[in-house]
Amino acid sequence: MENIQDLLDRTAAFSRTKTEGGAPASYIPELARADPALFSLSMTNFDGETYSSGDSDSLFSMQSISKVAALCFAIETLGRERVFSKIGMEPCSEAFNSIMKLEMTSSIPLNPFINAGAIVLVEMLNERFQALAIAEIMDFFSRLLGRQSRNALHINEGIYRSEKRTADRNRALAYFLHNAGTLSGDVEETLDLYFKLCSIEVNTADLSVMGATIASGGRNPASGTTIMSLDTAYIVLGLMNVCGLYDQSAEFAVEVGVPAKSGVSGGILCAVPGRMGLAVFSPPLNNSGNSVAGIRALADLSRELKLRGI
Amino acid sequence: MENIQDLLDRTAAFSRTKTEGGAPASYIPELARADPALFSLSMTNFDGETYSSGDSDSLFSMQSISKVAALCFAIETLGRERVFSKIGMEPCSEAFNSIMKLEMTSSIPLNPFINAGAIVLVEMLNERFQALAIAEIMDFFSRLLGRQSRNALHINEGIYRSEKRTADRNRALAYFLHNAGTLSGDVEETLDLYFKLCSIEVNTADLSVMGATIASGGRNPASGTTIMSLDTAYIVLGLMNVCGLYDQSAEFAVEVGVPAKSGVSGGILCAVPGRMGLAVFSPPLNNSGNSVAGIRALADLSRELKLRGI
Amino acid sequence: MENIQDLLDRTAAFSRTKTEGGAPASYIPELARADPALFSLSMTNFDGETYSSGDSDSLFSMQSISKVAALCFAIETLGRERVFSKIGMEPCSEAFNSIMKLEMTSSIPLNPFINAGAIVLVEMLNERFQALAIAEIMDFFSRLLGRQSRNALHINEGIYRSEKRTADRNRALAYFLHNAGTLSGDVEETLDLYFKLCSIEVNTADLSVMGATIASGGRNPASGTTIMSLDTAYIVLGLMNVCGLYDQSAEFAVEVGVPAKSGVSGGILCAVPGRMGLAVFSPPLNNSGNSVAGIRALADLSRELKLRGI
Amino acid sequence: MENIQDLLDRTAAFSRTKTEGGAPASYIPELARADPALFSLSMTNFDGETYSSGDSDSLFSMQSISKVAALCFAIETLGRERVFSKIGMEPCSEAFNSIMKLEMTSSIPLNPFINAGAIVLVEMLNERFQALAIAEIMDFFSRLLGRQSRNALHINEGIYRSEKRTADRNRALAYFLHNAGTLSGDVEETLDLYFKLCSIEVNTADLSVMGATIASGGRNPASGTTIMSLDTAYIVLGLMNVCGLYDQSAEFAVEVGVPAKSGVSGGILCAVPGRMGLAVFSPPLNNSGNSVAGIRALADLSRELKLRGI
Repeated sequence: MENIQDLLDRTAAFSRTKTEGGAPASYIPELARADPALFSLSMTNFDGETYSSGDSDSLFSMQSISKVAALCFAIETLGRERVFSKIGMEPCSEAFNSIMKLEMTSSIPLNPFINAGAIVLVEMLNERFQALAIAEIMDFFSRLLGRQSRNALHINEGIYRSEKRTADRNRALAYFLHNAGTLSGDVEETLDLYFKLCSIEVNTADLSVMGATIASGGRNPASGTTIMSLDTAYIVLGLMNVCGLYDQSAEFAVEVGVPAKSGVSGGILCAVPGRMGLAVFSPPLNNSGNSVAGIRALADLSRELKLRGI
Repeated sequence: MENIQDLLDRTAAFSRTKTEGGAPASYIPELARADPALFSLSMTNFDGETYSSGDSDSLFSMQSISKVAALCFAIETLGRERVFSKIGMEPCSEAFNSIMKLEMTSSIPLNPFINAGAIVLVEMLNERFQALAIAEIMDFFSRLLGRQSRNALHINEGIYRSEKRTADRNRALAYFLHNAGTLSGDVEETLDLYFKLCSIEVNTADLSVMGATIASGGRNPASGTTIMSLDTAYIVLGLMNVCGLYDQSAEFAVEVGVPAKSGVSGGILCAVPGRMGLAVFSPPLNNSGNSVAGIRALADLSRELKLRGI
Repeated sequence: MENIQDLLDRTAAFSRTKTEGGAPASYIPELARADPALFSLSMTNFDGETYSSGDSDSLFSMQSISKVAALCFAIETLGRERVFSKIGMEPCSEAFNSIMKLEMTSSIPLNPFINAGAIVLVEMLNERFQALAIAEIMDFFSRLLGRQSRNALHINEGIYRSEKRTADRNRALAYFLHNAGTLSGDVEETLDLYFKLCSIEVNTADLSVMGATIASGGRNPASGTTIMSLDTAYIVLGLMNVCGLYDQSAEFAVEVGVPAKSGVSGGILCAVPGRMGLAVFSPPLNNSGNSVAGIRALADLSRELKLRGI
Repeated sequence: MENIQDLLDRTAAFSRTKTEGGAPASYIPELARADPALFSLSMTNFDGETYSSGDSDSLFSMQSISKVAALCFAIETLGRERVFSKIGMEPCSEAFNSIMKLEMTSSIPLNPFINAGAIVLVEMLNERFQALAIAEIMDFFSRLLGRQSRNALHINEGIYRSEKRTADRNRALAYFLHNAGTLSGDVEETLDLYFKLCSIEVNTADLSVMGATIASGGRNPASGTTIMSLDTAYIVLGLMNVCGLYDQSAEFAVEVGVPAKSGVSGGILCAVPGRMGLAVFSPPLNNSGNSVAGIRALADLSRELKLRGI
């Protein structure tokens, strides 16, 4: 039987050029300048071994994938009840940053994976940890990704500043939520923290460790430490199942069929419960904002490894 | 270790009274008159053995669960491409019969599990099979549920006539779709067939065989015959994952975490890929139209049997 | 000073060819076949004199202009309170047959000039007059238009049958309203009466008498009889001001500035309070469903005759 | 016949206490603190005579009534074509500050009287006049209201600062419009100017002169100077007719029937074409944001003076 490294290499070689119809995110120059030919694929098993193929040294900003890590941290520190008092647990077929949905649903963002929901969640963390918020969050993210202190996470300053400068839509969402009373703190401070989380740099190895941690029910298989409870993992896995890929979530459930979360930098995180973590990176996106070659690679792996169970 | 029958009996005994806050569907008298105390739970493994507990002889109408069976049949006979030429593959957070979503999405129903999508699918089948449509569909359903010819499926005439008489909302949807050109045949004829499918009577044993058939990738473990392709099963499982429980789909993914489909008669079908089929029946519904005690029983079983994989 | 007939002739001659960009309504063949070159213009003063120019013998179906006459009759016979218990008094920027607006406003149609509102109003009249409804309504319309018994109003059978056959959208609206409880009678019977009213044939002289009747506060200046109360005229004039020309109502208020109501056959009725009635007919419509040359003629007359008061 | 002053006194005496069900605007403390018992009524004829009754010395902030003056100034200085290149001319049934309508209409605000439209208009003026914008606008407003230089207009600093501090909703609208490209300048600078205009203090005598100026077709009857063209007056009158009182515009057209514009401080401006200007002030507002007693007084005057023409 083919070994894991060979399978990843074969999948990467086949999928990395399957980017037709896609283009890197264009809403900020820093993302638009991404090299469309980059491709990386990683897998982490429950023994803590990580296999990678392709441009696995490439760093990219977490973008919306940071919403998953922030949700884990928020549930662990604030509790499920508090988190879901101001954020819903509903699927969402609209674009990920729609105000219309907000206006029709009593200003409770549909779920923590749409921008509005994540902004509310970030305010909760900011309120809880005050000046220490970014340090506490980065520390949790490091443990979730299996990063050691000598290999610390960094915020990509160029992307952070660019996000902050061109954030009209998120600013509109946040002021709308503040008007509705869902947000009550300083809007610009909350957005600043939100943009920092989006700008944290990772590679696919990091994300596959994170995926394996969630997939195992909360134990980071690389470090051997428990990062979150099984109940937290259930919540995160459920939401990844239903709303992980924006309005392409149902199609992804059909084509790949495992809990996942994408980001507009071109990364996709997968957590296959009881099996493994997976991550892929390729900047060209389809109209839904998801990596074209990334989905292709994951669909192939899902079938070959029977990741759905059949 | 506790055997299966004991587990089901224990779960049924514990969950059957957990109906607080729920009430049988009220939009037609036939459903409103359902005995709220009825409860039934069944499981079918891949050896074709079915275990049941509770009022397992109770028959109930399939309602929206028939949409799953109809989708299987439509993909098998018309092909995926044809089916999804007029129906989308998107999650849906709105109520299951919203016209508003239709109006904003170019008259392509979001997915085959909302009423609008199922009505379009039924017209396709009606167009393909003409006068034989109901017979062909019933035959497929029988094979999917493992019913023998001496134990044939029946339509509940009272429910069928009642559905037809009080079908204002579905009629509105259908005329809207006809105006938009998505439907092109006789509206009343299509609706008639749609109501018949909703009115087919089953018990939980039938549905757990159906669940096991899908969960196995298409082979009915009771009859040993292959009913659908693995690709069809992938599509159906993906949609069950994302939109199986109306606007409660995300919450169900968190609480239970397996592909499922509910109906307003109080039934819920589950297909646990690679593992088993499950079905539960209890008429009292929550505000989203899903069985209160049914979800409770499935949540308990999911944790005890680690149906998510963890 | 130029006399009235000369002014109408000059305006008609100038405006009748100003139909560029317009086309007859296409949703039913009978309207699509209208001769786009037809043009007629009429004015009725408070002495009961009617002046006409152009193809003033041309008959056309009232379409949405019948909503004005039906509203007058309904308020006179059922009372303002009853009429506006199930119909709103709000402007409407959406297309005239939007279901979306209905769904978001508790199933109370925004006003009696959108299709949904007119259908509710017709049901009220049908409920009140039963089998005599069409006769009573035609009798009121005749008095409103100054028609004598030897010169009775007729329903254009071809248009009526065509409307009825292609009425998917109105049928969708009506079943939606029935589902919501806003309509409670037989939907098809109500729609039948609604289509009959839309299909009543008139010419511009008829409509200018109708306009003068409303503009005078309720007295038909041709027959000398009082048709409605001043309060009824105030209601109708107010609604014509704000919602008479579908989503072009604000633009019409800027360009013409007098209470008016258009129909998709190409007619426009104007009631200039304290001054006169006006009517124009030219089949080619703009994207909002209003007569292109008709608006042009009315804009010119409004400026020349200072119909706004300045 | 009763003279004008007597009529105003009688109307004021009768209407000033008819505030039941109303309350001063609560979204900023400065407005919430308004004395609910204040009432003022003024009328200006085309000879330039102004009659007032009630608390006619009371100053109040223009709020949305400033949108009318800003529109006059913008059309006069930038031209109709430029103004309506980024703002629509459509009625609006939604609340005056809805983002949902924006999202569904390509980011072109429906008309210049909703907040989004006025903000776009203010940016146009800011771009044209730069640092001189506020001075140029105040100068135009002064001429429109017949204020002399020794009696200059002032901005209420308390209200201005309060508006600016609690402007979440307008800030959300503005950032949404900036994201869509409809706004392209500095958002905070544009909002700052917008809040200044809302905070200009006037009394009903000022507004009735303004109303008379518009009603006469552009000539300020008090100063005898022409402030705007007849074409500009037609545009402003048309929009006041259709969208002057938020979602109560149709009801106001029925009850009062003259072009008007309300503001949340409790003022209502009326321009009766060819007749006069009218203004009323009473802080308690109904649910639509319009002065309860103000509408009552105007409805009575409209009937007594036959302001509609009948």
